[in-house]
Amino acid sequence: MTATLGDIAAVCDAELQGDPASKIFNVASLRNSAPGDLSFFVNRYFHADLEKTRATAVVLAATDAPACPTARLISSDPYLAYAKAARFLNPIAKFSPGIHPSAVVNASADIAADCFIGANSVIGGNVVIGSGSYIGPGCVIEAGVVIGSQCRFYPRVTLMERVEIGMRVLLHPGVVIGADGYGIANDSGRWLKIPQLGNVVIGDDVEIGANTTIDRGSLENTVVETGAKIDNQVQIGHNTRIGEHTAIAGAAVVAGSVKIGRRCMIGGASAITGHIEIVDDVVITGMSGVSNSIKQAGVYSSGVPVTDNKTWRKNMARFRHLDEIARKIARMEKLVNK
Amino acid sequence: MTATLGDIAAVCDAELQGDPASKIFNVASLRNSAPGDLSFFVNRYFHADLEKTRATAVVLAATDAPACPTARLISSDPYLAYAKAARFLNPIAKFSPGIHPSAVVNASADIAADCFIGANSVIGGNVVIGSGSYIGPGCVIEAGVVIGSQCRFYPRVTLMERVEIGMRVLLHPGVVIGADGYGIANDSGRWLKIPQLGNVVIGDDVEIGANTTIDRGSLENTVVETGAKIDNQVQIGHNTRIGEHTAIAGAAVVAGSVKIGRRCMIGGASAITGHIEIVDDVVITGMSGVSNSIKQAGVYSSGVPVTDNKTWRKNMARFRHLDEIARKIARMEKLVNK
Amino acid sequence: MTATLGDIAAVCDAELQGDPASKIFNVASLRNSAPGDLSFFVNRYFHADLEKTRATAVVLAATDAPACPTARLISSDPYLAYAKAARFLNPIAKFSPGIHPSAVVNASADIAADCFIGANSVIGGNVVIGSGSYIGPGCVIEAGVVIGSQCRFYPRVTLMERVEIGMRVLLHPGVVIGADGYGIANDSGRWLKIPQLGNVVIGDDVEIGANTTIDRGSLENTVVETGAKIDNQVQIGHNTRIGEHTAIAGAAVVAGSVKIGRRCMIGGASAITGHIEIVDDVVITGMSGVSNSIKQAGVYSSGVPVTDNKTWRKNMARFRHLDEIARKIARMEKLVNK
Repeated sequence: MTATLGDIAAVCDAELQGDPASKIFNVASLRNSAPGDLSFFVNRYFHADLEKTRATAVVLAATDAPACPTARLISSDPYLAYAKAARFLNPIAKFSPGIHPSAVVNASADIAADCFIGANSVIGGNVVIGSGSYIGPGCVIEAGVVIGSQCRFYPRVTLMERVEIGMRVLLHPGVVIGADGYGIANDSGRWLKIPQLGNVVIGDDVEIGANTTIDRGSLENTVVETGAKIDNQVQIGHNTRIGEHTAIAGAAVVAGSVKIGRRCMIGGASAITGHIEIVDDVVITGMSGVSNSIKQAGVYSSGVPVTDNKTWRKNMARFRHLDEIARKIARMEKLVNK
Repeated sequence: MTATLGDIAAVCDAELQGDPASKIFNVASLRNSAPGDLSFFVNRYFHADLEKTRATAVVLAATDAPACPTARLISSDPYLAYAKAARFLNPIAKFSPGIHPSAVVNASADIAADCFIGANSVIGGNVVIGSGSYIGPGCVIEAGVVIGSQCRFYPRVTLMERVEIGMRVLLHPGVVIGADGYGIANDSGRWLKIPQLGNVVIGDDVEIGANTTIDRGSLENTVVETGAKIDNQVQIGHNTRIGEHTAIAGAAVVAGSVKIGRRCMIGGASAITGHIEIVDDVVITGMSGVSNSIKQAGVYSSGVPVTDNKTWRKNMARFRHLDEIARKIARMEKLVNK
Repeated sequence: MTATLGDIAAVCDAELQGDPASKIFNVASLRNSAPGDLSFFVNRYFHADLEKTRATAVVLAATDAPACPTARLISSDPYLAYAKAARFLNPIAKFSPGIHPSAVVNASADIAADCFIGANSVIGGNVVIGSGSYIGPGCVIEAGVVIGSQCRFYPRVTLMERVEIGMRVLLHPGVVIGADGYGIANDSGRWLKIPQLGNVVIGDDVEIGANTTIDRGSLENTVVETGAKIDNQVQIGHNTRIGEHTAIAGAAVVAGSVKIGRRCMIGGASAITGHIEIVDDVVITGMSGVSNSIKQAGVYSSGVPVTDNKTWRKNMARFRHLDEIARKIARMEKLVNK
């Protein structure tokens, strides 16, 4: 879509230094932009690109304005301003409502007239789908699922029985919500499966990435609250609750019966043990392991960064004896103090 | 289903303190239960809930009985007793046999008359499916696969050519069994794919979680023995063997040509290197890395738990020099001993 | 297929010690081989199997030849020679071209006449599929996707809008390419989704494992260059570039805007932070975390291997105070030096 720089400045709450009548067609990176593009600058790494950009305008902070050779949209949060401009210029694609003839829709399903159901999707009994929702091809929505309005499911999403989905929820391909939690009890060396009788409840404005899995509760529900954003290949165990506006990056693993607060940020490839609680506003950096409750907001880490293999081998050989080393130090300290 | 407390006491081998004629309709958590529910108490964390529960009866240990305000089922293993009661009250849902008209079933497939094949599933040539098995919608079962009786596959399961599945196997959505193992040989800087000619053999009573992948062997078979329980998003490489009644929690990664013994428990987000062997009765706690064979039963760990980010930064800076620190200590020790 | 030992020696550039007219029917492991099989020996662990093998011939290094009781194919790289022989004896299965009647193919799709489109697959508008490509059952290929010749997609692959795939690309079940990258901006505590406008471009001869996900770029493209081999359940974030002939093992996680060079080997269950660069010919061993750019070729590691749980508990208790320990040592050193 086309807009004027003036329109965009208003949309993203930025101060315009340039011609408000300039036409903007889309967003682009500093390096690949051409006249008609809007770009943004937030990362020092791209400073050389800023100085050479061919974009019609650039969103950036006031302090970076002097280096910008073209029109500027000055913002105290250029990334957010860019996000707003990009959304304005790229509204969600419209679709023609309808049920593809190859879709298999149970007669008892209650699907709003302005929905789309893609080719080869399967919709079970008593499913309810709210107004304006889009179900891509190859999805399987099992019996009793309730889906709010304005949702968008990409291909091959699976929702198991009775799962409840809020409004404007975005599910990427391969997502599985409501499979059985991992509940087993040991019976003289054999595992007995425990029926998983809870449900999964997803709030409004939640986005869930490709091939992510969220298990149904054992007795109570697994819950993802409003505004949470979950990346690809995340695993969320049964009975877990993810708080409002919490973000979980790729391949993080949250075990069962965990309670994560609001506005947390869980780094990629992190793992969170079962039966613990993390309060609001906690940041876990990437590849960290959380094995105890976190009771105070703040940033927490445990990822071990690489060194060259030779150094790592030596350090690991010592690490295996860290307690002995510490004891040795304590003994020496006594001697030295004498 | 409805049962009497007396029936349930018998099913779960518990001593009843209460009226055997009381009616029980289902299981529920201590906190959310109502009259007619059976609950259970195993976790100290919920002690307050026990004292206030409205459940008709609670399964618990003898020592906890005094705190229980209602009828009790006394068991030396209350979690197992609860599992048995929950299974008894929630038998696996029956289904009407039949092949959905939208399913694409090869004429040479041999499917027992009492099976169910879901909408838009695809069943290849010479597939054999035993009595009473249920194949959910959107599954793809490639040519030559053999599936035992009483299996239950949820939507969108994929079994590649010739895979063999035992009896009463439970596969959750998105499971992929029998894709090619990761076998490549380097040819002057380019990778040459090595044909993966083995198979995957899954024993009886195995459960496999959503989006888990199990690769076919390169020459011999990848094997999951009877009673193993595998959680979501687990990756199992080619030629690997998982022993009987071993449990593998979410997002664990088992590389190729690994042999894991019987009754092991592999924690979530753990990783096990290729070409090693782990004996029976080994427990690996969550987020651990196993890079050498484990020859003795026991509990093994290497997960690094989080600290606040500032402490972590300081500790990591030291960790990079751990070997130097240890050398320094050795030198000082010599001096001190003189 | 059948071949003579002489043919095979030529195919795999090996020196034959044996009868060139001997018939070979297939490859097999040393232990399970029978007359007519070709086997290989590269791993000392299987030395006893070599001495007892019933294979007609064995590929191995000159130094191991004396232990081999049967015909030998002597090679300086027996694993590569075996790979070539296995490929020769097991050519990729031929298929009969055609579009399964249950597939849903948009009239505007341009599919070469010698392609195969499997049951219940869905092909969107303006999709282009090159000569000799095979699309398995249950795939979803969204509008505008371009697929080269001689590709092979196994069941339930999903390609999102406009994704570009080279020639001879192999995609395993559950692969998702081109889902939205994880791009969100914080707006006073709520997350705003940023449109993901880039694409994914996959080069020639790429193989991608089951349930792996590769996100589309935010503005520029996510790129997997020619010859890269990616295992199962790998996650690759938006804007990332994987260099030619780089291999990424199972469950590795590569965040967004990463540039990985050529001929790198990324170990299983590793994680690579966003916005960094790794040069050519870097090896990352399994379960390592990379949080800074790597500017020199070489081997890098940070995985922490297990110890018994008791030792681990003690070492971890010390590790939390590593910085304090190091300070203490420095103080003692001063004292001792005095």
